[in-house]
Formats: sequence, C-alpha cells, structure tokens
Amino acid sequence: MNAKPISGTKDYLPGEVGVRDYVQNVVLDTYRRHGFQRIQTPMMEDLERLDKSEGGENLNLMFKILKRGDKLKAALEGGLTEGLADSGLRYDLTVPLSRYFANNRERLRFPFKCIQMDRCFRAERPQKGRYREFYQCDIDIVGDASIMAEMELITVTAEALTNIGFKDFTVRVNDRRILTGLIRLAGFAEDAVEGVCMSFDKIDKIGVDGVKEELLQKGYDQGTVEAFYKLVGEDVLALDGICDANIVEDVKRVVQTAGDVANGRYEVVYDKSLVRGMGYYTGMVFEITCKDFRGSIAGGGRYDEMIGKFLKESVPAVGFSIGFERITSVLVENGFQVPGEKKEVALLYGAEDDFLEVLRKRDELGEEGYVVNVVAASRKMSKQLNKLQEWGVGYVFVFGRDGAVRELSEN
Amino acid sequence: MNAKPISGTKDYLPGEVGVRDYVQNVVLDTYRRHGFQRIQTPMMEDLERLDKSEGGENLNLMFKILKRGDKLKAALEGGLTEGLADSGLRYDLTVPLSRYFANNRERLRFPFKCIQMDRCFRAERPQKGRYREFYQCDIDIVGDASIMAEMELITVTAEALTNIGFKDFTVRVNDRRILTGLIRLAGFAEDAVEGVCMSFDKIDKIGVDGVKEELLQKGYDQGTVEAFYKLVGEDVLALDGICDANIVEDVKRVVQTAGDVANGRYEVVYDKSLVRGMGYYTGMVFEITCKDFRGSIAGGGRYDEMIGKFLKESVPAVGFSIGFERITSVLVENGFQVPGEKKEVALLYGAEDDFLEVLRKRDELGEEGYVVNVVAASRKMSKQLNKLQEWGVGYVFVFGRDGAVRELSEN
Repeated sequence: MNAKPISGTKDYLPGEVGVRDYVQNVVLDTYRRHGFQRIQTPMMEDLERLDKSEGGENLNLMFKILKRGDKLKAALEGGLTEGLADSGLRYDLTVPLSRYFANNRERLRFPFKCIQMDRCFRAERPQKGRYREFYQCDIDIVGDASIMAEMELITVTAEALTNIGFKDFTVRVNDRRILTGLIRLAGFAEDAVEGVCMSFDKIDKIGVDGVKEELLQKGYDQGTVEAFYKLVGEDVLALDGICDANIVEDVKRVVQTAGDVANGRYEVVYDKSLVRGMGYYTGMVFEITCKDFRGSIAGGGRYDEMIGKFLKESVPAVGFSIGFERITSVLVENGFQVPGEKKEVALLYGAEDDFLEVLRKRDELGEEGYVVNVVAASRKMSKQLNKLQEWGVGYVFVFGRDGAVRELSEN
Repeated sequence: MNAKPISGTKDYLPGEVGVRDYVQNVVLDTYRRHGFQRIQTPMMEDLERLDKSEGGENLNLMFKILKRGDKLKAALEGGLTEGLADSGLRYDLTVPLSRYFANNRERLRFPFKCIQMDRCFRAERPQKGRYREFYQCDIDIVGDASIMAEMELITVTAEALTNIGFKDFTVRVNDRRILTGLIRLAGFAEDAVEGVCMSFDKIDKIGVDGVKEELLQKGYDQGTVEAFYKLVGEDVLALDGICDANIVEDVKRVVQTAGDVANGRYEVVYDKSLVRGMGYYTGMVFEITCKDFRGSIAGGGRYDEMIGKFLKESVPAVGFSIGFERITSVLVENGFQVPGEKKEVALLYGAEDDFLEVLRKRDELGEEGYVVNVVAASRKMSKQLNKLQEWGVGYVFVFGRDGAVRELSEN
C-alpha cells in the first residue's frame, strides 16, 4: 500500500514539530500575557454558513463533507448533485470566530481579545510550501472601535515575533479609505478601485513603472493613470481631500505610537501601496515584512462589518495574523534550534539488566535535568553510539558499566 | 443565521481552552523528557487506506470528503454512488501512525518513541461528553518487542497523570493471550472468544453473577459457563496450561516492576477481566482507572501486526492513550485552576490619555510579572470593576490616577 499522505498534505518530522510547538508556545504565551484568551472551534462548519461568508476564491477551494446514511440516500434519490454535503472544513478562522462570538457572547469578556491557532483547509493546487491543511495563527480584538485596538495588535504581534527571535522587521500600515481615496482622486471610476489596487499591490515586485504599464494594459485611461502616478509620488497623507482628515490623523498616530513603543527593535511605517487582499477590510490594514523573508510574515486589518453578521448589530473588529506555516518552514530550513532544550542522554541497558534498576536510574538522571531515552544496547555498541549521535542524542550512560554520563562526541 | 456549531461539535470557552492547553503541555513535557518525539500527520487520509484499516465500527462512523471538480463530475455521471469520496477524516491516530512510520522510516529513530496529540473525527450519535471532533493523546513505541516497552509506557503515562495532579489511580494489566487461554480452558469454542470477552469486560458494572447470567442468555452451554466461573475464581496466573509460561512470567514482571517504580504513588495490578475492546491487540493490554472518574482515564496495549501493514515486514508496537477529552472535561467541571497562572491586571485608560504612555505602562507592568489587559475605562467605573472581577481579573491600575496596582477585591 502507498504510504504517502494524500496530495497537498504533509507528514511533519519530529524536528519540525519541535519547532512548530516552540513557535506556537512563544506566540501563545506572548498573547496571553496581554490578556488575550484562546478559543477553540470545530473544524467542520455548516456548509450554508461557509457558502454565505465573504470567502471569495476560498469558497471554490472548500472541502465538503459527504452526507451520511438516510440524508445521503435522500440526496442521491432526489437526483440532486447539489445537496450531497451539508458541512465543510473551514477555510479560515474568521468565519468560525464570527459564529463563536454570536453563540457565546454572554459568556465572553467585552471587548473580546481572542487568540486562535488551529488548522484550516483549502484545496489549493499542490505546490512547494503550500499545503491543503495549514495552521492559522490569529489575534483579534472584537468590540473596540478605537485605534487603541490597532496599536495594541501591532505592538503585541511585533512582540511575539521578537520573542521568536525576529529582528529588523518592518510593520507597514495603510488605511483602505486612504487607498481608495487616492484612486478616486486620480479620477478612476468606483468600479476600477479593485483592479487598480491589485496592480498597485505589486509595486514591490514590478516597480512603479511596472504598475503603470500594467494599468495601461488593463485599458485604463492614460490621463487617469498619469494623474494617479503624480499623486502617488507626492506626500499622500498631506493630499487635500483624499479622505476624512481624522482617518489620516489616526494612521499617523498609530504609526508614530507603535514606532515609539518599538524603540528601535523594529520599524513602523506608513506604506501607501499596501493593499492586503481580503475584501472584508474596512479601515486600517497592516503587514509585517522582514529582510530574510520574501513576502510578508504577518498581516491584518480592521473589518467592522463581519463579526456582526450573526447578530442584529454591527460589531467593530480588528485582527492580525502571523504566517505560522511560512515562518516555521523557513526556520526549519535554516536549521533553527529550539532554545533551552534539555540535554538528551541515552540510557543503554542489556537484556540481563534488572529493569527496575534501569528505570530507577532513568528517574535519577531525569531529576538531574536530562531528557532520558531508555534504549536497549545493541551488540555493536560503537555503531549504535554513532547512530545515537546522528539522531541528536548528545550523551550516553551505559547501565552497569558507566559510573557517569559521558558525552557522545568523546567516543 | 443560526450561530450554533454543527451537531456533535463544540465551541470551547477560553477557560476550557486554558485547561486543555495546560494538560496538553504537561503531558507533552513529560513524554518529551523521556525521549518521545511528537509527530504530526494530516487529518485527511486516503479513503481506501481508511477502509482497509482494522477500524471495526469506526469505519461506519467515518466522515468522507466529497470529490471536487472533474472527479466529482465523473463520479456522478457514472451513476456511481460509491465513488463520491476518495478521502476521509481519520477516526484515530493509529492508522496515520502506521502510514507515517512506513513513509518516513529512514528519517526516524528506531525503536521509534512517538507522541501524537491531535484531532480525530467520528460521526457518533451526539450525546453529552461525546463529540464528533475530539483529541486523542497517544504514545507508542514502535520496534521494541521486549516488555521493557510495556514498562516504559506504563510508568511514563502514570508520570504524566501524576504531573497533571492525579492521585490514587490504578494501572490494570492483562494479556490477550491469558484471557483467551482462560476462555478456551473452560471449554468455549474459538468463535465464542469475542462474545465471552464482551460479557466478561462488564464485570465491574454487572458483577460476576451478571456476567454469568448474560453468558447463559447468549446461549452458551451451562457446563462451560460454570467451568469458566470456577476458573475465574482461582488464581488465574497459576493455572496450568492457560498459555505459554513466559507470557504469564512477563505479565508478573511488568506488574511487579511498574509497581515498584510507582512506590506508592499509584497502584499496578493484574486484572484478569480486563479486555480492552480494540481487535488489533495481540499481547498485553492496560488501562488506568481512578476513583474520582467512572470508566478509564487511559488505555492501551501491544499491537504487533498493525504498524507493519504498509511494510513488507511485521513491526512490533505498543501504545498507551490518555483519555484527553474525558480528563479535561471533568477537570473543567470541577473548576480546575491552572497552576502558576500569572496575576492579571486591567490597565484602565481614558480617551484623553496619551496612548504611548499607556502602552509604556503596560510593558512596565508586564515586566513586573503581570498579565496586563489594556481596557478603555467606562464612565461607570465601579460597575466596570465588578465586571472585571467577574471575568477573573484580580487587579486594576487606573492610568493617570492610581500610583500602584490595586487588588480588585478591595473595592
């Protein structure tokens, strides 16, 4: 039988899981120290709820779960090819959060500062580094319309990244309403906003001229494109009439304050070309980039219209998501060593040894602070010691022979 | 829109997740200190692989994932009602472990001491405390045929439970081969073994007489049933010809040695009526019970024929599984407090306060060791302080007014 995991999924080796657990714990601990609370929701969600969510392309990538028993029978007999599934695997953690908040509101703090770190599923075309099962790692503040929420999310997320060991990263901030204001000010029509955004977003990759070229290729009026580029070249936040002055003021304050908190550990900047793809953002958006990583390592923004979907009122919300899969896979590739790991000693015993005494020795070495791996001695011990070293075991104690723990490199 | 999670699944509140994370970390840490390594496998598995596994009733409870795109089209056009799915959600962690071991063998230690702690899925009839998504928490030793593996699993699992805070629990040990030997010695036919086991397993609930009655009701020969009961009343391990003497000797040694390691912290006993349901066990089986819990809190055994299914050779294996969902739900019900949690202080600020200074105060209090929850002060502060206390926040610092952290109970 074929032993490979199914297409687009991955087996994680023990070393990888060690790094993943470490990163998860550092992030969780950072978030919890700021009063954020972790929640857990099911991976299976009602299909109608998923279908009605603002998932865009993700809705086409959904894994649906086949109905069972009589329900399946009825669906098949009815000749319906539509009603074969009534639940699906979630494609993100925001739809479940909206439902969770509505379902448990009375038992939650408010504003609700929430951590989610769990699996999501998307049937993406299999490719390197993209998996159909992947972790998302989000914090959200639900119920705070003030920019204090943005500042808290930015500084707390940056602290988590710093605690993992990231340095020299840049937090980029923009506001959806400034971006669209800029596009409209240039003279683009309302229905051009999305297309212009998509091109503008590529400025890091294709440069200003590349964006211009792309916009012209898309068929936009040359004069409007030129006007846009004139505006982009200016100090955007100082442009008259781009949007409500309070919005500009808020972005400035967030950038300034978060930058002051950073105090040189990381950088916080306004980035006029920052788009962030998700259609549901309504205000500020942010992204963190790092020299050593292509693309972003975290992203988020304010989405005031979404959480309230299950309620009769609208509830402001803002979230920030760390790119857990990207970060951990690059750390693993770079041979990241989990800090503070205990020394591991192999406790070798022979079949003739008294097991009780072996186990007592195990507990004794454990109390001395070692990870103790009890292993049957093989006849070819020097070969075995090489193997143990190869596996990352640094020390050995041969029961009944060694009086003390020996370093394996000494062999 | 209905905000309830789908039938048989559950939203976990922050307090519950706190307990779950704590238990998981204690168990993981214990296992890792013994050289066990955590692995991670996909939740979606190939449907054929699942179908061919020895899952028994679980195969009927499988969630299958609908094919997508052209594959689904082809399946529907073919009029097949069978081929609608080609993958499913795993119902346990042992099938994935077998596949994983075969797939990654060259990159794994051997014997392989393995930790798995992750979600499984079964479409059980929804009932209190039984969920369709649930965590399993397993350790396995793959590649060690000696009883040292049993002793290590038992003592390490007991240590994990002790570290969570369990006391006065009992580890029960039996061997499949002694059990079947006993049944055959009484004169039951080979094909009666399973049925007799199922009744015998209930001895804790219905007593010796209840079992006898059930066996008679099932239609077994009265003389055989009587003979069985005579044998059961005797010192089973001393019975002549019940099975290979080495098997009996091994069980005695495991009970004795693990009991000596326990040194009064827990009890290890031979339990002649211990069955454990899983059909794939081939040798010793074990279970842990605790006065405060009905039913078992952990169970496992040796299954030498399963891991090798994907390989051309057979590979011995033994596993022990902690009942994570049972344990955590009872701990939550009993109001378990996670030990060593930091004190939480609400840092209240007003809209007129300088956010930068508020965030600096936050980091200052954080360095003093508090969990710091930044919260906008409401106009009705005494009501707010009551609310904070209700949420479990023990301390408050009102920015610009309080010079120091105050205990909330003093209000």
